[in-house]
Amino acid sequence: MPKVVSQTDRRRVIADAAIGVIGTNGIEGLTLRDVAKAADVTTGAVTHYFDSKTEVLEAAQDEVVRRLLDMQNTPLPDGTSVTETAAAFLPNGEEQRRDWKVWFAFWAHAMNDARLRDKNRVYYEQFTANTERWVRTLQETGLADRDADPRTLADALIAVSDGLGIRIALEPDDWPRERQMKVLGAAIEPILRART
Amino acid sequence: MPKVVSQTDRRRVIADAAIGVIGTNGIEGLTLRDVAKAADVTTGAVTHYFDSKTEVLEAAQDEVVRRLLDMQNTPLPDGTSVTETAAAFLPNGEEQRRDWKVWFAFWAHAMNDARLRDKNRVYYEQFTANTERWVRTLQETGLADRDADPRTLADALIAVSDGLGIRIALEPDDWPRERQMKVLGAAIEPILRART
Repeated sequence: MPKVVSQTDRRRVIADAAIGVIGTNGIEGLTLRDVAKAADVTTGAVTHYFDSKTEVLEAAQDEVVRRLLDMQNTPLPDGTSVTETAAAFLPNGEEQRRDWKVWFAFWAHAMNDARLRDKNRVYYEQFTANTERWVRTLQETGLADRDADPRTLADALIAVSDGLGIRIALEPDDWPRERQMKVLGAAIEPILRART
Repeated sequence: MPKVVSQTDRRRVIADAAIGVIGTNGIEGLTLRDVAKAADVTTGAVTHYFDSKTEVLEAAQDEVVRRLLDMQNTPLPDGTSVTETAAAFLPNGEEQRRDWKVWFAFWAHAMNDARLRDKNRVYYEQFTANTERWVRTLQETGLADRDADPRTLADALIAVSDGLGIRIALEPDDWPRERQMKVLGAAIEPILRART
């Protein structure tokens, strides 16, 4: 029986291939043909879904964000500290590092493309809503200052995570786990516990 | 008398023009010809200094970093709070936003270029050394925890600044000064004052 592949699955397979191609060649060298080859489909199959390189980049970014949101929505084992929870989102390992290549390419393009900036805003609204929910549970259990505005804490935590993500993605050898944990410890817990 | 233009000045004029061209067209659309036109020099003058688009991007990034280091080395008025000091480095205003376009393009390229990553490491070593020096003065005046490791605090402050910078560069309308100051207040002072 032939395998039934849904439109969504096919798009996702192509998007995943695009992440790999951006990871290897960067966005500038990317061609729809390379993406087709990596996805093991015809170039026609790629152009059926995507009209341009920018649309491929968008789909790749959607996929990167989908994975991050999945991670945010997957509970970590009981007893995982707030610092360890934050650490899980840092680009350690090849796959997360590759995802950061897509982020950088996406941001570089978004600065000159209002539609991509709109997408970026929606991504961050989703990250922020999830992070805010997490902060509220920490406030309920006394691990975060109950009087602080959860939205502001979420903004601050995301900033720390993004800022460290840049460094670790670009300078993995200079950022062993020990340094990452030291900086997270110096940032995440004081932010959560501060009486502002 | 003809104006004497040093090699360094000429390079800097071209680098500054490149920042403008990247700001307007993004890096992908950049040609050495556009840069020459923006710098009001011949294309030959550009190719005399720079062999490739990557070298132009590098020079643009060097110039962006030079400005940031200048800012770090220029004392702010007495009585400027730590939060206001941090706020001065966020990409408010057209020029700083344009500089962030260069950062994003540079990082996107650096992920696939070891030489650019080396440059990025050197830039951050300089930012970190300056930030660490600032932290030490705050420790001496009691505005930062004297027992904390100044290097770790500098890493954390730079992460907050970069993470917020991304957001503000990409979503300027969603980040009015009030939100920026709230998040900086929730991050910078707790980090500095925490007993870790």
